[in-house]
Amino acid sequence: MTEQIRIGIVGYGNLGRGVELAIRQNPDMRLDAIFTRREPSAIPSETKAYSIEDAERFANDIDVMILCGGSATDLPDQGPAFARMFHTVDSFDTHARIPEYFDQVDQAASGNGKVSVISTGWDPGLFSLNRLLAESILPEGKEYTFWGKGVSQGHSDAIRRVSGVKHGVQYTIPSDQAVERVRNGENPELSTREKHIRECYVVAEEGADQAAIAEEIRTMPNYFADYDTTVHFIDEATMKAEHRAMPHGGLVLRSGRTGESSTQIIEFGLKLDSNPEFTASVLVAYARAAYKLAREGQSGAKTVFDIPFAYLSPKSGAELRRTLL
Amino acid sequence: MTEQIRIGIVGYGNLGRGVELAIRQNPDMRLDAIFTRREPSAIPSETKAYSIEDAERFANDIDVMILCGGSATDLPDQGPAFARMFHTVDSFDTHARIPEYFDQVDQAASGNGKVSVISTGWDPGLFSLNRLLAESILPEGKEYTFWGKGVSQGHSDAIRRVSGVKHGVQYTIPSDQAVERVRNGENPELSTREKHIRECYVVAEEGADQAAIAEEIRTMPNYFADYDTTVHFIDEATMKAEHRAMPHGGLVLRSGRTGESSTQIIEFGLKLDSNPEFTASVLVAYARAAYKLAREGQSGAKTVFDIPFAYLSPKSGAELRRTLL
Repeated sequence: MTEQIRIGIVGYGNLGRGVELAIRQNPDMRLDAIFTRREPSAIPSETKAYSIEDAERFANDIDVMILCGGSATDLPDQGPAFARMFHTVDSFDTHARIPEYFDQVDQAASGNGKVSVISTGWDPGLFSLNRLLAESILPEGKEYTFWGKGVSQGHSDAIRRVSGVKHGVQYTIPSDQAVERVRNGENPELSTREKHIRECYVVAEEGADQAAIAEEIRTMPNYFADYDTTVHFIDEATMKAEHRAMPHGGLVLRSGRTGESSTQIIEFGLKLDSNPEFTASVLVAYARAAYKLAREGQSGAKTVFDIPFAYLSPKSGAELRRTLL
Repeated sequence: MTEQIRIGIVGYGNLGRGVELAIRQNPDMRLDAIFTRREPSAIPSETKAYSIEDAERFANDIDVMILCGGSATDLPDQGPAFARMFHTVDSFDTHARIPEYFDQVDQAASGNGKVSVISTGWDPGLFSLNRLLAESILPEGKEYTFWGKGVSQGHSDAIRRVSGVKHGVQYTIPSDQAVERVRNGENPELSTREKHIRECYVVAEEGADQAAIAEEIRTMPNYFADYDTTVHFIDEATMKAEHRAMPHGGLVLRSGRTGESSTQIIEFGLKLDSNPEFTASVLVAYARAAYKLAREGQSGAKTVFDIPFAYLSPKSGAELRRTLL
């Protein structure tokens, strides 16, 4: 290894911390700086932290900046702003706003000779790759995405807004029966209720009406009313002991038909103990790709669709062909 | 659709026939000619067939030639020879000889401004892609490939060479128990015998000693001795009715660790009614990629590792971002 890729992290929550841990597994990279909106001295890391305002001073010292902020409010500003100064990678995941975000980042990056890989992670990201691959190989077919078993932050937040709820965690769980029907090549039409179930664990405030809480959750429009939802009441100690991890995962399946009547099933699945650590590991692999693309003189916004897998690896093309093809 | 990609097929066995069927599912392509070493008038297709010797006359009339010959004797000659005249795609699958084959095809293609995508299909091909992706994201981990349930031609041929055997088909089957241990994150060390079982269906010659046949199969070195092998004797009608299809499939799993102790599992699986039809569908998607790469002015040998998934699809980048990301 002659030269390490110098990485910066913007935002040090669960995802930023995951990126820090992932970089330790990749000897061709090193973490040089963390940028935060918090007080830098309060960041619990051995890596030096700086105010996000100071980032532009590092334009010559950081090869790729990994943006670890959220898609709701952080990335819409930070994405284009950092793409003007650095090669960047992010996990922007508001599916409906990706085209608009792509255009904004592309303009910022292209104009400054930078490469920005947007919307990596697993959905968008690895799941999207598999949807594209499977559709291209089996144009006559039907695609299914199942999420879980895993914690949905949005649904957990919705539970916590119910009056009388002290803590709440929601797990999205694919219906085993629905998955089996797809795997068997039945090409079923599946309603929202048939695809996933929702399981809620709630710590109620002292003296709260548990039946009323459960009813309010189960009938909540958009979040729970269209699903089979179960609500379990537990005590605070159980919540802490059993529901602090952030597992997730899911499946992308395509059931297609070739020739006269051959059913062909392509399945991609993830089973993750830690959603933020896995997403971080994907970001780090795409940071390597951003670095390689930049060295070739490329610029502009890219997605996972635009990047050959060889760019994700520290190995040479010849080594990949010899060992992995 | 303004312009269709003009495809030629070299070799009209199961794979070539599969390519012909797959092209019908892709309106941006059309099959213009089949090239064969057999008597062209004997090819049972509506597409015009020509002697393989006449292929070079079509240099300006075929955009991509899909080479459907075998890896043992056809492709080592045909690959470099056709790469001099046409953009090509093939499914060269002798893993150990890929580096050498890559270099030969690369030299032929580069020198003539042609693009040749080698070793597509599913293994090598989609399985290789998943090995590379998973290793790049989870550098600390262990990879497992399971094949089947499916027919192995090599093992079926070996059965048929046993004295007293009239017909024979061999299925490779992953051990459910081994797969479950990997999915559970146990990172097991699995012996050859633990990973797959082999199931043989045999039609014996009249009066043959079935016990001796079964014993000879089960103890055959390299092919069966290292596996738990079962041998079933069936009659010819059952063989024809139940064992004529060519199903296959398999799994690529990587079990990795991130952070301090999070187990992360990435799994890719195929369940195929028809192995040759599926392989053909992969070849056709990569023929589109070869065409797009050539239009950009690229040349030389490429593998699945070098090609962004966007090139496999007839859709534009903007449409892919809007609908699949």
